Amino acid sequence: MNATPDPVVIREVGLRDGLQSLARVLPTADKIEWIRDAYAAGQREIEVGSFVSARLLPQLADTDQLVAFARTLPGLCVSVLVPNLKGAERALATGADVMLLPLSASHAHSLANLRKAPDDVVADLARIRSARDAAGSRCLIEVGVSTAFGCTIQGRVEPDEVLRLVEAALAAGADRVGLADTVGYADPAMVRSLFERCLAVAGERVCCGHFHDTRGLGLANVYAAWQTGIRRFDACLGGIGGCPHAPGASGNVATEDVAYLFASLGVPTGQDFDRLIALRARLAVWLEGETLRGAVWRAGLPKTLRTAPPAPA
Amino acid sequence: MNATPDPVVIREVGLRDGLQSLARVLPTADKIEWIRDAYAAGQREIEVGSFVSARLLPQLADTDQLVAFARTLPGLCVSVLVPNLKGAERALATGADVMLLPLSASHAHSLANLRKAPDDVVADLARIRSARDAAGSRCLIEVGVSTAFGCTIQGRVEPDEVLRLVEAALAAGADRVGLADTVGYADPAMVRSLFERCLAVAGERVCCGHFHDTRGLGLANVYAAWQTGIRRFDACLGGIGGCPHAPGASGNVATEDVAYLFASLGVPTGQDFDRLIALRARLAVWLEGETLRGAVWRAGLPKTLRTAPPAPA
Repeated sequence: MNATPDPVVIREVGLRDGLQSLARVLPTADKIEWIRDAYAAGQREIEVGSFVSARLLPQLADTDQLVAFARTLPGLCVSVLVPNLKGAERALATGADVMLLPLSASHAHSLANLRKAPDDVVADLARIRSARDAAGSRCLIEVGVSTAFGCTIQGRVEPDEVLRLVEAALAAGADRVGLADTVGYADPAMVRSLFERCLAVAGERVCCGHFHDTRGLGLANVYAAWQTGIRRFDACLGGIGGCPHAPGASGNVATEDVAYLFASLGVPTGQDFDRLIALRARLAVWLEGETLRGAVWRAGLPKTLRTAPPAPA
Repeated sequence: MNATPDPVVIREVGLRDGLQSLARVLPTADKIEWIRDAYAAGQREIEVGSFVSARLLPQLADTDQLVAFARTLPGLCVSVLVPNLKGAERALATGADVMLLPLSASHAHSLANLRKAPDDVVADLARIRSARDAAGSRCLIEVGVSTAFGCTIQGRVEPDEVLRLVEAALAAGADRVGLADTVGYADPAMVRSLFERCLAVAGERVCCGHFHDTRGLGLANVYAAWQTGIRRFDACLGGIGGCPHAPGASGNVATEDVAYLFASLGVPTGQDFDRLIALRARLAVWLEGETLRGAVWRAGLPKTLRTAPPAPA
């Protein structure tokens, strides 16, 4: 009767989206510990860094080392952000499993973040696809449509423009796409509507929801996207994160809170809650002085999740 | 085409649920300022205090004065918590518009909080109803079913028991009932299921959702209850609150965050966001040293809520 629901994947993006927004550089050894512990906690998808210029983001300059380490962990899907063809070539060289290309639905944000208009990024994507195919690589190309729900610079972003870019990205060679509320403007009704529209045109190739908790609606938005059928979510341990080019965009949804949400819903995620909380405590030491967010770490799991439900009568 | 959705009422319960969990006593003059400013911000339902013994809760000992002041504000619905018949008689004497009787669905919580089993509270309720009718008062009797989604002491609370108590409360004379996640154990699926079941047996007499944000799901739960048709929510400015007899129950959903959620959904609440945020800043001064919570106050409203949407083509 009560079949187990489809599992949900929580992709840890703290090492990329989280760390890139902090001024400090976390030592490579700590990042490797983070990846190791996250893996031990059951995380099977981790975005370990970004192949951007080390001059722009010195925080992520060790991404090639992190990919090399992460690839030693059996069954771990290793993803990296790539801003352009050059980054994609580096991703292909390291053997990452997924490269994520951000494509901003806000023209203004696209210019600020990537110094290119959205359609120029789509043109890049076609070149990245050619390079991937020429290399005979199986690395998946995922496009993350950022500012899909609005933009701090431009304001409103038209859902029609998001749809257009999703279709353009898939036509240009993306294997799959996700929608990102980069600046925390989404509400559950917007999430539901936009994901439903994208799913209607792109089906299972719409594969990920990426939400920031800037205004408190992060988990409500995760839930709303899950209701439409989305089964993969980005999250950052301790709710760190943001976007250097999107003022006020602080804080991805916290990995441990998303894990709790789905645990409470009875949806398997493979996450070991106690290990996640222990890792969060280590992260707080590594990032001493930074603000960590999230809610459930303070109160702990409900007693009802610690005990088995009563047997049916 | 796009008819305006039904309005939602946000009942401010910070003066009761919020302040009762703090050790300090907020001076009556500050509380009166709070009520005055909340009214100016558009709040039309305020729970101003509780008719419990001043020895047990000195923080709320001035409730009669607050009811008297609040009654001078035209159109304001003044509610008070009453734990028993004696409290109800005081509420009737002051002329409050609504008295809220807590009825814990957890036997263990009921004993800890009210020193009575749930069915003894239902018996009290019948006496309260008789007293109300004998007085010829129009004061509404609302029963708040607390720990409806679980309990830190008892653990699991059976939905069937909640249903039984909702029906018993209405049969014993309650005008309406609400469901409260006193300790922050609910998730959106639980909320949806339990409210749907209660609405099926009690219809519009199920009138309120009361959520704590202990584990980050408060706003997701508000949204889920709203999806079932609930149009009234309790909230505390600055997310203060808790329950002295429910460890870890810190933090009601923040009034300003709930106001933002519904503003983003296009649902009228009558709240003036800027005034709410200004009042929150005053509250932070009055409660200096206490932890205020909530999210949207930090980032502010999205630019897209500050500007009118484009005219339809």
